[in-house]
Amino acid sequence: MNRRVHIDLGERSYDVVVAPNLLGDCDAALAPLVRARRIALVTDPWVGDNLLPAFAPTLDALSPGWTRFTVSGGEAAKSFAGIEALLKDMLDAGIDRGCVLLAFGGGVVGDVGGFAAALLMRGIDLIQVPTTLMAQVDSSVGGKNAINTAHGKNLVGTFLQPKIVLADVSLLASLPEIELRSGYGEVVKCALLRGEREFAWLEDNLERILARDPAALVEVVAMGVETKARIVSEDELDRGRRALVNLGHTFAHAFETQAGFGEFPHGYAVATGLACAADLSARLGALAPATVERVTEHLRRAGLPTRLDELAGDGEWRAAAIERSMLHDKKTVAGRTHFVLLEDLGKPCVSDAVPPAALRETLLWAGAVDGGEAGA
Amino acid sequence: MNRRVHIDLGERSYDVVVAPNLLGDCDAALAPLVRARRIALVTDPWVGDNLLPAFAPTLDALSPGWTRFTVSGGEAAKSFAGIEALLKDMLDAGIDRGCVLLAFGGGVVGDVGGFAAALLMRGIDLIQVPTTLMAQVDSSVGGKNAINTAHGKNLVGTFLQPKIVLADVSLLASLPEIELRSGYGEVVKCALLRGEREFAWLEDNLERILARDPAALVEVVAMGVETKARIVSEDELDRGRRALVNLGHTFAHAFETQAGFGEFPHGYAVATGLACAADLSARLGALAPATVERVTEHLRRAGLPTRLDELAGDGEWRAAAIERSMLHDKKTVAGRTHFVLLEDLGKPCVSDAVPPAALRETLLWAGAVDGGEAGA
Repeated sequence: MNRRVHIDLGERSYDVVVAPNLLGDCDAALAPLVRARRIALVTDPWVGDNLLPAFAPTLDALSPGWTRFTVSGGEAAKSFAGIEALLKDMLDAGIDRGCVLLAFGGGVVGDVGGFAAALLMRGIDLIQVPTTLMAQVDSSVGGKNAINTAHGKNLVGTFLQPKIVLADVSLLASLPEIELRSGYGEVVKCALLRGEREFAWLEDNLERILARDPAALVEVVAMGVETKARIVSEDELDRGRRALVNLGHTFAHAFETQAGFGEFPHGYAVATGLACAADLSARLGALAPATVERVTEHLRRAGLPTRLDELAGDGEWRAAAIERSMLHDKKTVAGRTHFVLLEDLGKPCVSDAVPPAALRETLLWAGAVDGGEAGA
Repeated sequence: MNRRVHIDLGERSYDVVVAPNLLGDCDAALAPLVRARRIALVTDPWVGDNLLPAFAPTLDALSPGWTRFTVSGGEAAKSFAGIEALLKDMLDAGIDRGCVLLAFGGGVVGDVGGFAAALLMRGIDLIQVPTTLMAQVDSSVGGKNAINTAHGKNLVGTFLQPKIVLADVSLLASLPEIELRSGYGEVVKCALLRGEREFAWLEDNLERILARDPAALVEVVAMGVETKARIVSEDELDRGRRALVNLGHTFAHAFETQAGFGEFPHGYAVATGLACAADLSARLGALAPATVERVTEHLRRAGLPTRLDELAGDGEWRAAAIERSMLHDKKTVAGRTHFVLLEDLGKPCVSDAVPPAALRETLLWAGAVDGGEAGA
């Protein structure tokens, strides 16, 4: 049940391998890339303690001098202090341009590891081995990395394409339930971008997926990676079509900025953002109301929030404050916030001319309060 | 006497315009790139006070909302703290992907500004307007940017090619003498890479250059930019031939690391490094001793140091410590230090197999003391 998805980026092309039990059997895939060079393995404490021991024999054989570097788990590592400390550790240990950085962990490890690989001596080779559903289906593919600032998430970063991505779905067996569901939020996004066939497949197979059936997980991860591969290949540097993978994310980023990073999993914010994007699309006459209902129903079945009070019950969500956060989104250019809308399943489009009144109605529909212009 | 050098990098190609009195007459060159977008101008206090007033009317016409951001002059700005502060200032001011970063200053401004443009929202457009000979002839071209760490210079950075480089040689009229000579060290390097004709031209025109004759400066800057353009176009990401522009720099970086950044101008270290590279080339039988003498004589005529005691008279230079610093150079891979050597004027080559004894002899020739393995 192995799948191999090719990301076509000219001389920066690479493959994503999706399979169960992959880490114990990846010598053939990695050896030509590593060529006995020293691996700098970046991971977090939990992955280092729980998943690395099974991977270590493979690393010993591939790269006799491999070295482990640990970043703290959680978004706090995605900071200037975090990247500075990691780069210092690597320079202290003598990591140079001849080494390979292998990022082994979830989205934070992939982001900080990828950023470090991009910056160390202006770039060293990168291998991504994502250990969460979110990272396997989304963040490990496409070459983006970033850290956060006080102004918002992922506002500082670079592009560095990995040489290969190994997505071992067996690693997801030990993933906390909340992280599995969070990653599933991105899976739903991908299916909405793809079309009826993919979304219906999720509807029919949700129980198998949540039960972590390996064959179902391979399908789900491969579908997500293929979705991203198609869009990234057309627009590596995120100047046009790549904006489509941001379906639901203009909302999600604003919800995260308002609540403070880490108050809820990213995929939960995405799920609520997808519901909002569908609702906004219907208000603008683009999407059938029945499809909005079908999307929100599926998110609910997966145990994901579709309203702001489900996302974070305490505190008040003020519509005006959320709207202001959107103006700081990376996709905002010259003061115009870009939204990805749906005309149908599989038919996304981008608009930078959403009427403020429609946006406000969607936020109220999602449970925000009408804070007026002065709300904060 | 205008010159326009094309840097051929496929879809990342750009032009370097070299001319006197360029800033007062660059609307036509900049307008198609800026397209009335907001310019984030990054500069240092001296350039902002002394050179910006004459440039401001052009900026007012091109970009009504342009904003000035100031980084401290000197290498201290090339730090994590410096780049973090600049990015925060820019985000505070609402700089987004639709803006253009214009780096207006010397090498530090170009490095920090270029790094900020590369990292802000994963990359915004960059324009380089270098104000020193060093920056015009070398650092503004090629897309490299970097900050320093405790381990050495420029160990953390990225590549981001500018959209255009404007080298106005009239800006060099107010350049301190020491900075003019420092930049000239890189000019000599370029001529050594180019060949007999270029080096002889420098020998014949040194007085005009040091007197800042505009026509001579245009020739010198254009020659340097062309040299870099040829090599960069073949090897944008510095994995092979681009190493040639590092002639003299393996030595220079080690001298700078040993002395501490900022103890002497970079071009002075380069001049001493060029003398060492020539001497080492002769010791290995590659270069005629008469050519070594010709190179050191020209550097001396330009008022540049060719020996370590001329570079920094106080303190002792220990050969073993310099050799250890070389092991931390970015060009060092798997413990093998790469040297650019000369077989003749215009015939550089790279070696990662310089016998340690020959290197030691060159360092002693340059005035280092034989500190032995234990020296520090």
